[in-house]
Amino acid sequence: MSTIKTKKLTIVGAGPGDPDLLTIKGLRALQSADVVLYDALVNPVLLEHAPAATHLFVGKRRGYKSYKQQEINELIVAFAETHGHVVRLKGGDPFVFGRGYEEMEFAQAYGIDCAYIPGISSSIGVPGLANIPVTHRNLSRSFWVVTATMSDGSLSPDIQLATQSDATVVVLMGLNKLPEIAAIFQQNGKSTLPAAVLQDGSLPTARKGFGTVETSSQLTENEGIQSPAVLVFGEVVGLAASFETALQTALETAFTNS
Amino acid sequence: MSTIKTKKLTIVGAGPGDPDLLTIKGLRALQSADVVLYDALVNPVLLEHAPAATHLFVGKRRGYKSYKQQEINELIVAFAETHGHVVRLKGGDPFVFGRGYEEMEFAQAYGIDCAYIPGISSSIGVPGLANIPVTHRNLSRSFWVVTATMSDGSLSPDIQLATQSDATVVVLMGLNKLPEIAAIFQQNGKSTLPAAVLQDGSLPTARKGFGTVETSSQLTENEGIQSPAVLVFGEVVGLAASFETALQTALETAFTNS
Repeated sequence: MSTIKTKKLTIVGAGPGDPDLLTIKGLRALQSADVVLYDALVNPVLLEHAPAATHLFVGKRRGYKSYKQQEINELIVAFAETHGHVVRLKGGDPFVFGRGYEEMEFAQAYGIDCAYIPGISSSIGVPGLANIPVTHRNLSRSFWVVTATMSDGSLSPDIQLATQSDATVVVLMGLNKLPEIAAIFQQNGKSTLPAAVLQDGSLPTARKGFGTVETSSQLTENEGIQSPAVLVFGEVVGLAASFETALQTALETAFTNS
Repeated sequence: MSTIKTKKLTIVGAGPGDPDLLTIKGLRALQSADVVLYDALVNPVLLEHAPAATHLFVGKRRGYKSYKQQEINELIVAFAETHGHVVRLKGGDPFVFGRGYEEMEFAQAYGIDCAYIPGISSSIGVPGLANIPVTHRNLSRSFWVVTATMSDGSLSPDIQLATQSDATVVVLMGLNKLPEIAAIFQQNGKSTLPAAVLQDGSLPTARKGFGTVETSSQLTENEGIQSPAVLVFGEVVGLAASFETALQTALETAFTNS
């Protein structure tokens, strides 16, 4: 006689890459998962927390989607019916430029209990790990998180307004639009605004480029930075540079004194 | 002979209240802490992860700061010298409207190794837990996180520009400025824009008010919502209401069929 399992969907944010940036709550969800559906930006090490579960990759590989969104929605429902607890593991936070919410709505319409467990969003964590606070008492009192590309592939109109504000502007999924974005900042007289381009921000493979709006495309090329990357524009980016300098001075002083 | 301890500061984001929304990395930092300095918005249950460490509350209580910022900076350095590993535990993410970065800069100038561990920011996690995704493919392609109050107590000028955008606007530490903020949205023709006021968003004590810009102050009063609260303005807020309705329908159908 088989146990009747409770149908359940938990949408879990995996964070920006470092597997230890998963929350304790996310870890518990994985440990009780019967099935894990995961995306390309999820660190596969996290699957080790669910050794007995069925693992299915449903992300994009080399730009090619292995499953369409509708298929993912249907897989969630089907697995919940047959296996019980489905964990949908998504990079960063599931509700930031992901389609986690649509998956939850779909599953709920089939009477499946749904829960959301937030994750560390790359929009805040990745700048922070590069010594860039998204806000700072004296430099920026707000931050605006934008995706560069609309569903039709064109540049998001929010970018235009964002470049007019004093907010720290964080752009996700925007590396291939960087020249266009930089041009808009330049049109608004912000050629020398500090800018950073950050790849794999929480991993040992991190690549970081620091410069200004006008040097941002060049430094991306120089550092060999590739997608996906987080772009940060704002005075707070300048802090990271002075932080590095202070660290260097402290190290030199330490060596001189030793 | 005493062991020479390594002087170290780790600034850890405690997340929005639910102790299980701490990251695994934050948990490990606490477990290796010799001293924990914590703020008012941190769930004190988290201190149980550091049972042998010295715990010191350095937050505000009833609006009164127990320590000035400069004193906190100096305490961090002094404790690192005498005790070793200082964990600075802050609500949400330490670099979102906190002064974590300044503490890190101060400690580093004294040759203390510093690390930052991101936390779940209330700006994303609290709306999400109230079934409000900060972005949604068809409704909002960006979100703007603003604090209501500047250091001199006046309303942040970023609010004015934010109300003109189509971004989801998330206001932290803004409950006592809600009427002023709502008035600015109304001046920009957005009286009926969906709005939510969320207190203790990740805790069993959560209080949630859903309405529009023009009803936001009233619903805050009706629900008895108190500071600190997260304010959310944008079309995405409307999703939470339809999510509730769908849930209700699903439950009713389930009962009718049973």
